[in-house]
Amino acid sequence: MNAIQLDSKGCLKHFLGIEGLKSDLLIKILDTAASLINNKAVKKVPLLRGKTVVNLFFEPSTRTRTTFELAAKRLSADVLNFNINTSSSSKGENLIDMLRNLDAMHCDMFIVRHNAVGAAHFMAQHVAPQISIINAGDGQHEHPTQAMLDMYTIRQYKGDFAPLRVAIVGDIRHSRVARSNIHALRILGVSELRVVGPKTLIPKGIEALGVKVFNNLKSGLRDVDVIIMLRLQRERMQSALLPSANEYFQSYGLTEERLKIAHPEAIVMHPGPINRGVEIDSSVVDGKRSVILQQVSNGIAVRMAIMAITLGTLSEQKESH
Amino acid sequence: MNAIQLDSKGCLKHFLGIEGLKSDLLIKILDTAASLINNKAVKKVPLLRGKTVVNLFFEPSTRTRTTFELAAKRLSADVLNFNINTSSSSKGENLIDMLRNLDAMHCDMFIVRHNAVGAAHFMAQHVAPQISIINAGDGQHEHPTQAMLDMYTIRQYKGDFAPLRVAIVGDIRHSRVARSNIHALRILGVSELRVVGPKTLIPKGIEALGVKVFNNLKSGLRDVDVIIMLRLQRERMQSALLPSANEYFQSYGLTEERLKIAHPEAIVMHPGPINRGVEIDSSVVDGKRSVILQQVSNGIAVRMAIMAITLGTLSEQKESH
Amino acid sequence: MNAIQLDSKGCLKHFLGIEGLKSDLLIKILDTAASLINNKAVKKVPLLRGKTVVNLFFEPSTRTRTTFELAAKRLSADVLNFNINTSSSSKGENLIDMLRNLDAMHCDMFIVRHNAVGAAHFMAQHVAPQISIINAGDGQHEHPTQAMLDMYTIRQYKGDFAPLRVAIVGDIRHSRVARSNIHALRILGVSELRVVGPKTLIPKGIEALGVKVFNNLKSGLRDVDVIIMLRLQRERMQSALLPSANEYFQSYGLTEERLKIAHPEAIVMHPGPINRGVEIDSSVVDGKRSVILQQVSNGIAVRMAIMAITLGTLSEQKESH
Repeated sequence: MNAIQLDSKGCLKHFLGIEGLKSDLLIKILDTAASLINNKAVKKVPLLRGKTVVNLFFEPSTRTRTTFELAAKRLSADVLNFNINTSSSSKGENLIDMLRNLDAMHCDMFIVRHNAVGAAHFMAQHVAPQISIINAGDGQHEHPTQAMLDMYTIRQYKGDFAPLRVAIVGDIRHSRVARSNIHALRILGVSELRVVGPKTLIPKGIEALGVKVFNNLKSGLRDVDVIIMLRLQRERMQSALLPSANEYFQSYGLTEERLKIAHPEAIVMHPGPINRGVEIDSSVVDGKRSVILQQVSNGIAVRMAIMAITLGTLSEQKESH
Repeated sequence: MNAIQLDSKGCLKHFLGIEGLKSDLLIKILDTAASLINNKAVKKVPLLRGKTVVNLFFEPSTRTRTTFELAAKRLSADVLNFNINTSSSSKGENLIDMLRNLDAMHCDMFIVRHNAVGAAHFMAQHVAPQISIINAGDGQHEHPTQAMLDMYTIRQYKGDFAPLRVAIVGDIRHSRVARSNIHALRILGVSELRVVGPKTLIPKGIEALGVKVFNNLKSGLRDVDVIIMLRLQRERMQSALLPSANEYFQSYGLTEERLKIAHPEAIVMHPGPINRGVEIDSSVVDGKRSVILQQVSNGIAVRMAIMAITLGTLSEQKESH
Repeated sequence: MNAIQLDSKGCLKHFLGIEGLKSDLLIKILDTAASLINNKAVKKVPLLRGKTVVNLFFEPSTRTRTTFELAAKRLSADVLNFNINTSSSSKGENLIDMLRNLDAMHCDMFIVRHNAVGAAHFMAQHVAPQISIINAGDGQHEHPTQAMLDMYTIRQYKGDFAPLRVAIVGDIRHSRVARSNIHALRILGVSELRVVGPKTLIPKGIEALGVKVFNNLKSGLRDVDVIIMLRLQRERMQSALLPSANEYFQSYGLTEERLKIAHPEAIVMHPGPINRGVEIDSSVVDGKRSVILQQVSNGIAVRMAIMAITLGTLSEQKESH
């Protein structure tokens, strides 16, 4: 499904999903992101000057949209924001016609978030050849830029991926973050990858992806180097997959006490926004093992790197030197 | 009514309507737009650097606003967007006070869309002398930038206007696009100009504008070089001016079959957004005679040209060389 | 409360309130703003190039947000706009987490408007050290940038503050503009400062701030050099603090006739938006003593000055020469 994100030379044309990518491509993204960070901050660079980046958000998410908007502006691109309510087909224009119109206006990149699996892939198949598509989350499928910023953060704190034990904790079933992270961590070759959560929230047969399943949090956390907590969607509780936020926290909430079961230098990650006291205790969020805000920081540089790589402006820059 | 758009030297100060303009001014706009297109794309230029362009949209239109926003950004202007709900007079500030405040903030250009005829003209009479107004559609009156991008597209495909037979098809009565295009095509001197549609949708006495009226689509399309389809507003059907979308398509929808009546090299245009299957068949929209997406592309360059001409930054540029 | 806006060297780090500031700091802001105005207009300058300014508006105000957005863009900053509905805690993220995330994205400045007193102060105490906060209005407490543009306008027309008699007229009780202006005018040392309004709208004990209270408009206006009219919030009338708009205008509305009581060269100011015919007659708004639009113009330069001073980019610029 993700084959269309590579061009005929194997270069990244779109960024739709982690599944199926090679490790050297992931490493290139991480290295490029690192090169954009100078003295802990990202400086404004002209890599996308004159380019037009369009945020096409069919699901509301001020937070994710903002990180892409900031990344684009720090690359000196022009940015257009569209928040599209899919329930009202205002003026009846269909999606394909909308894309073709944006094509015709010589836009260069679409950042797409949609609640339907494969929405970004669909667009990548229908846009003009000069346009790159970035998947900013498609249903419960993938959220590949989140996975890359998570990989960046893990490498920043842990260096080599090979010896690591990583646990992803929470609602694995409905999480595109979990899915993209599982692919990325397998590709980058961590020693052991665990998913931890109640049976109702772990898809059957997920072991085929190369993960170990734990339904008990304490067992799942034992000796891990990296803990990736997932956001608990409150809707799940209404749908009877879960009893209550309180009960969930009793069994799967990450507390200071439980954190001690992990490796003493384990890092705690979370994609945000956080439900303090539901999936994670406030003291852990703000504690010394938390790298959650560092993830947010890294998100800007990683997204800048992905934008510059897919639009091919990095190589152009080198050529012009 | 449009006299106020020219300054004392006959230069374009505002762009409010096509009616009454001279052909050399229209040609100047087309030539300027052509000069901004390089290798099929519009590059970012600094013609409006340091200028502030304000989108004042009293009617919602993401699509048209986007084309103006993109045009302004490609001219390196700063852009402010206001979507103003005219039904709620939030905080009770009146329109004149709002304009004066934007004047005082040293804004340079207002792009105005309003459902009232003459809204842009009214503003042009009330703003400070350094400000230029662009009419982005006033009620059922004019939509002059749409007409200019249509003229650009016709010239691109057909060269000289003089020998052309042009048909405008659909709801002539309620269409500001039709009105502006009729004026532009008369000024540029096409050989024959037809309007085609049901009697209820063609204003009485429109022949005075120099057009021939056809109530039968087949007769209207015979041997024409250019077909301009209009969007059918579904509201018209509720107001009893039209029976149903289906019945309308039977009589006035443009199909591949009917297109054969026109000149074999006729082009098909549409201002968008398209109601596929209502005023035009999908296969015609996507067919080889359609230049609809080229219209969208041209819209950016044409709007850039109009902005630069009205603000006088083109001549400044020349002088500074 | 405002001590936290100064850094350890006494330089302005945040701009939260006028109360407690020294006159030389206010004069520095006015002088810096003057240096940004060239031939009556503000030119675009690169003082904040590469900086990210975030508008955090928890109260809707297109007007004030626009002036900050324009000021930031004329300083060449990148701007993000957030209109936050405090009643819906969408996705349940709390304010502190939101601030920390924006910190982590390396934003440089937050412009904060909130209906709670002290909101900007609270944020200033919780953001990362590199971030500056500007108070764009906190409840009924302060609106310090409005006061500074008012001071700029008074100095522009009257020169020295020392000999001036100033009257602030209207709803003193609920006005953050009044509060900030009273502090600024006392600090800059006007000869006499009056507040004028009905008893219900003047807080008890306000004389402690160094003002004289007048409940009669004619007495209050006698021989004053500057009249600062306040906007009357219509909500006040529903809350029984006031009888009716009409009756209010009879007693406290500024008319041409009443204006004659003031000094013949008195200027009339208003923070906008204006209720014509409620607190002020239309003919006075548009009359020759009105400097209301000049206030709006000055607002851009004054806000630019405050942004550049708090971010320390003015001194950097000098050093780099």
